[in-house]
Amino acid sequence: MPERLLLGPGPSNSNPSVLKAISLQPVGHLDPFYINLMAEVQSLLRYCWQTKNRLTLPMSGTGSAAMEATIANVVEEGDTVLIGIKGYFGNRLADMAGRYRANVKTIEKDWGEAFTLDEIEAALIEHRPSVFALVHAETSTGVCQPMEGIGDLCRKYDCLLLLDTVTSLGGVPLFLDEWKVDLAYSCSQKGLSCPPGLGPFTINERAEAKLNRRSDKVPNWYLDISLLNKYWGSDRVYHHTAPVNMNFGMREALRLIHEEGLENSWARHRTNAESLWNGLEDLGLELHVDKDIRLATLTTVRIPSGVDGKAFTSHLLNNFGIEIGGGLGSLAGNVWRIGLMGYNSKVENVEKILEIFDSELPKFKS
Amino acid sequence: MPERLLLGPGPSNSNPSVLKAISLQPVGHLDPFYINLMAEVQSLLRYCWQTKNRLTLPMSGTGSAAMEATIANVVEEGDTVLIGIKGYFGNRLADMAGRYRANVKTIEKDWGEAFTLDEIEAALIEHRPSVFALVHAETSTGVCQPMEGIGDLCRKYDCLLLLDTVTSLGGVPLFLDEWKVDLAYSCSQKGLSCPPGLGPFTINERAEAKLNRRSDKVPNWYLDISLLNKYWGSDRVYHHTAPVNMNFGMREALRLIHEEGLENSWARHRTNAESLWNGLEDLGLELHVDKDIRLATLTTVRIPSGVDGKAFTSHLLNNFGIEIGGGLGSLAGNVWRIGLMGYNSKVENVEKILEIFDSELPKFKS
Repeated sequence: MPERLLLGPGPSNSNPSVLKAISLQPVGHLDPFYINLMAEVQSLLRYCWQTKNRLTLPMSGTGSAAMEATIANVVEEGDTVLIGIKGYFGNRLADMAGRYRANVKTIEKDWGEAFTLDEIEAALIEHRPSVFALVHAETSTGVCQPMEGIGDLCRKYDCLLLLDTVTSLGGVPLFLDEWKVDLAYSCSQKGLSCPPGLGPFTINERAEAKLNRRSDKVPNWYLDISLLNKYWGSDRVYHHTAPVNMNFGMREALRLIHEEGLENSWARHRTNAESLWNGLEDLGLELHVDKDIRLATLTTVRIPSGVDGKAFTSHLLNNFGIEIGGGLGSLAGNVWRIGLMGYNSKVENVEKILEIFDSELPKFKS
Repeated sequence: MPERLLLGPGPSNSNPSVLKAISLQPVGHLDPFYINLMAEVQSLLRYCWQTKNRLTLPMSGTGSAAMEATIANVVEEGDTVLIGIKGYFGNRLADMAGRYRANVKTIEKDWGEAFTLDEIEAALIEHRPSVFALVHAETSTGVCQPMEGIGDLCRKYDCLLLLDTVTSLGGVPLFLDEWKVDLAYSCSQKGLSCPPGLGPFTINERAEAKLNRRSDKVPNWYLDISLLNKYWGSDRVYHHTAPVNMNFGMREALRLIHEEGLENSWARHRTNAESLWNGLEDLGLELHVDKDIRLATLTTVRIPSGVDGKAFTSHLLNNFGIEIGGGLGSLAGNVWRIGLMGYNSKVENVEKILEIFDSELPKFKS
C-alpha cells in the first residue's frame, strides 16, 4: 500500500481519528446507539452548512449521488431547469437534469470565471425556470461563485436555488439559509477530511413543498428523500441498510470541525491558500483564476508552455508520493489543480508542495 | 461505542482484517495502485458469483443501489417486468420497476415458500415479460429459491433473468453462469464480512445487449453502467470519486473468501446453520421454512405464542449486546430472524445464541 499525500482535487487525506472511527465494528442500522449518532451527524451537518433545514442528512453514496438526489427529488418531467455552466460539474448537472426529463436550459461562462447578478437575472427572465442550479466551488476551475443576491433573484422569479457545495463545505464560508439556498449537496472527502463514500444533502421547506406537490413517485428509489425521511426522521422506517461505518467516520469528522470552530476552519483554509498562491507566483507561475473569485480549497495553476503537465504529475506521484490533479474538459493540458482541503490544509503541506515545484519543475522545462 | 454481536438479518460483523484495510489512508481514485486493486476486486467478485461476466463491479452504494442499478439499466418505459414476490424484497423490486415506468406484473407466494418451475413458466407464458426478477435468498423469510431450470425457461421465453443474491453471495452455493442468470446484485455486509456501503453488481452480454439497444439514456446517472464501464473498464474515464476505503475493505474481504475457498465457505455456513436449526428445535422452537428450501445464512424462527418478540430482542441487545431481527411485513410479530453470515458463521456464535435462547426465553413466556 503506497503512502500518498493527496493534494489534488480530492479525495484529500483523512484525519487519522476519522479512519479510526471507520474501523470500529459495525452496529445495526436500527440500533439505538446508531440512531443517536445519526441525529448528531444531522445536527453537525446543519452547523457546517449554516442551515436549519430539518431534512439534512448524508446520502449513502458519493457526492455525485447527492447531486443526483437534489435533481431527482424536485424535478418533474417538463420542468424547466436552468443550469449555470462554468466548468465540468455544471455539465454534469445538465446531463442529470435531462435524464429526469427536464427542459434543460443553460447559461455559460468561460472556465475560470463566475456569473454576475445581471447575467443570472437575464437568464431567469428569459427562461423562467422552476430550478436554477449553480456550482458554488467549481473543482474543475478553482472558481468560487460570489453568492450575494442570487437567492433573492431566485425568490423574485419564483424558482428554487440548487447549490453544489462539494468543494466548499467545511473549507469556505457557506451560509445556506442567509443565501436563501433551497437545495444543496456536498461530499465527504474534501473539506470534511473523511474518505469518499457519503454525500451530504439538504433541502428546505420551500423545496420540500415542490417535492410534496409531485404527481408521481420520485423516479429514483434509492435517493427518494420522502422515503429516506421516514428513516432519518422520527419514524425510523427501514429503507436501506445504512453504511454505518462511513457514518461513524462522518460523525468524527464533523465533531472535529465543530471542535476547531467553523470560522477557524475557513480562516485556516484561506491563510494556507494565500501562502500557496504567493509561493507559486514567487516561482514565476501564473494562477488561472482572478484573486477575488479564487477558491481557497482548490487552486488552478497554469502549466508553463513547453512543460508536459502529465509527465510532471506522474513524476510527483511516483517519486514523492504526492498527488496533484491535471485539468478537466477545456482546461485539460492547461492547468494543474492543487487542493488544500480539510486535514491537508496545513502549513507543512504548503511548504512541501512549493519546495517540490521549486526543485522539480525546472527539470521539465525544455 | 457499544460492542455488538450482529446475528440479525445484516449487517453482520466485519472481519477485523477488513476493518484494518478500510482504515488505511485513501489514495486517489485514478492512482495506478487503486486501478490494480479495482481489477482484483472485479476478478474476485466473478469468482464468488461463479461468473465470467466482464461487467462485474461494486456499485458505490449499498445493496439497494445495486438492486436499482439492475432495473435502471435494462428497463425501458413500457417494458413488461415480471416480479416473483415471496417476501419484502420482491415488493421493493416491484416498486423500483414502476418508477422506471415498467409495465409491472407480479406472481406471489406466501412468505416462507418458494416458486415452482410450473408456476414460473405459466407466468412467463401469460405475461411474456422482458425481464423476470426473482430473489434467490429472501432475507425477510429465510427461503432459498431453488434455481434449477429457471434460466432455461427465461431463455425459452426470451426474457432476462434478474437475481437478488444479497443474502446468498459468499454464504450459499451460487452459480450465475450455470444458472443462466443475466443480471444480479448483492451487498457487502452479509456473506462478505465487510461493513455495509458497497453493492456488487454484474451483468452478462445478453443483458448488456438490451442496454445497448436503449433508445434513451439510462434514467439514472449515478448507476448508469455504460458510464461506469468507462471507469471500471480499460478507459478509466472519471465518473465519480470512488469510495476507495470501502473498496480496500472489499478487496480484503474477497481475498479472505478466496483463501478459505468458496466451497469451504458454503459448507461452513451450511454446517453452522444446521447446528442452529437442530438446537432451536431441541429447545422446542419451530422453524418457519421447510428444510429443503431453508436458507443457511438466515433462519426464521416462529415466536412462541404468548411471547412479546420485540421485548425479547430488546432484552438480548441491551443485556447481552446481541442483535437478532424481528419479522418484516406479513411476518412482523410472528418470527425472529437469526443470521449466521460471513465472519459470524462460526460454532461459538451458534453455541452462544442457543445458550441465550435456552436461559432467557423462558423468562418471556407467560
